[in-house]
Amino acid sequence: MPRVSQDQLDARRHEILAAARGCFARYGYEGATVRRLEEATGLSRGAIFHHFRDKDSLFLAVAEDDAAAMVTTVRRNGLVQVMRDLLEQARTSDGDTAGWLGSQLEVSRRLRTDPAFAKRWAERSAAIAEATRERLERQHEAGVLRDDVGVEVLTQFLELAYDGLVLHLATGRPAGELSRVLDVVEEAVRRP
Amino acid sequence: MPRVSQDQLDARRHEILAAARGCFARYGYEGATVRRLEEATGLSRGAIFHHFRDKDSLFLAVAEDDAAAMVTTVRRNGLVQVMRDLLEQARTSDGDTAGWLGSQLEVSRRLRTDPAFAKRWAERSAAIAEATRERLERQHEAGVLRDDVGVEVLTQFLELAYDGLVLHLATGRPAGELSRVLDVVEEAVRRP
Repeated sequence: MPRVSQDQLDARRHEILAAARGCFARYGYEGATVRRLEEATGLSRGAIFHHFRDKDSLFLAVAEDDAAAMVTTVRRNGLVQVMRDLLEQARTSDGDTAGWLGSQLEVSRRLRTDPAFAKRWAERSAAIAEATRERLERQHEAGVLRDDVGVEVLTQFLELAYDGLVLHLATGRPAGELSRVLDVVEEAVRRP
Repeated sequence: MPRVSQDQLDARRHEILAAARGCFARYGYEGATVRRLEEATGLSRGAIFHHFRDKDSLFLAVAEDDAAAMVTTVRRNGLVQVMRDLLEQARTSDGDTAGWLGSQLEVSRRLRTDPAFAKRWAERSAAIAEATRERLERQHEAGVLRDDVGVEVLTQFLELAYDGLVLHLATGRPAGELSRVLDVVEEAVRRP
């Protein structure tokens, strides 16, 4: 059997993640059967589960990748911008965003029903909250934020709006006035 | 076979709904098996499904009852008060509220995956939005609301916060500063 380098392993792992993300987005967690994951990746189940212990681990890896991307965007542009991007994607997507949002809801469902998953996920979730808090603290120092309410409360206010947006879009409800709603959200944390 | 009056049928239906609500709250939709529904109601599956076509119909009837109760509270005290009540229940409950919230999430999941369910649910969902809108319009006429943003946008802002609260609590996350977050939400729709 030929030796495989770490770079090759990493590249293969990355390919599997990208294909699996599309598959989860299209079919949802439960609909993304092992057969469909094989088709999406072009690999056998043996090859897939050489890299990820099982479908659960694969799903978690995709969700963690998404969370890491979200942390990057929050650091750069803030959680309200993440929400605006999400809304824009929902408006223009061919259904894949709804699938991605479905995965977000699937994460939520499993947080509730699966303590082991909840424990693994807690760290990621904390990283997003931390990035939001740090950005708000910088804005607070810059005098942009309202100062009659603590940064922690404002952080949790933005997270509440984010969760609401995820639930709204994931359930396929129309965007309605959400763009202007996000203006109200943004304004509510700023100095009047 | 003895004749059964409409009053008796209604009373029996009401009993089944109450017992099923507790069962769905405790075990979630999927965990509330027909056997557990039999135990909870003290009736055979034949008797239960004489009143409700199937488990789906029973779940929908419970969810519709909850939605009707919510419309009443919104009319009387507003959607923010519904949120405060929900938060208080989550703080003090022995887990049943989390179960009820789980049912709310289950409604959300099925809205996404089951078009027939979504169609049946749309009417209920619209009734809650309508009650919220009517109350905001009365407050607008009373000069309590901010007037730089339309009532429709403010209605959808409150719904976004409500959805966020449902997702937050249903996933078992700690209440944190949510009580003060709801102050921020309430203040954001009022005249400064």
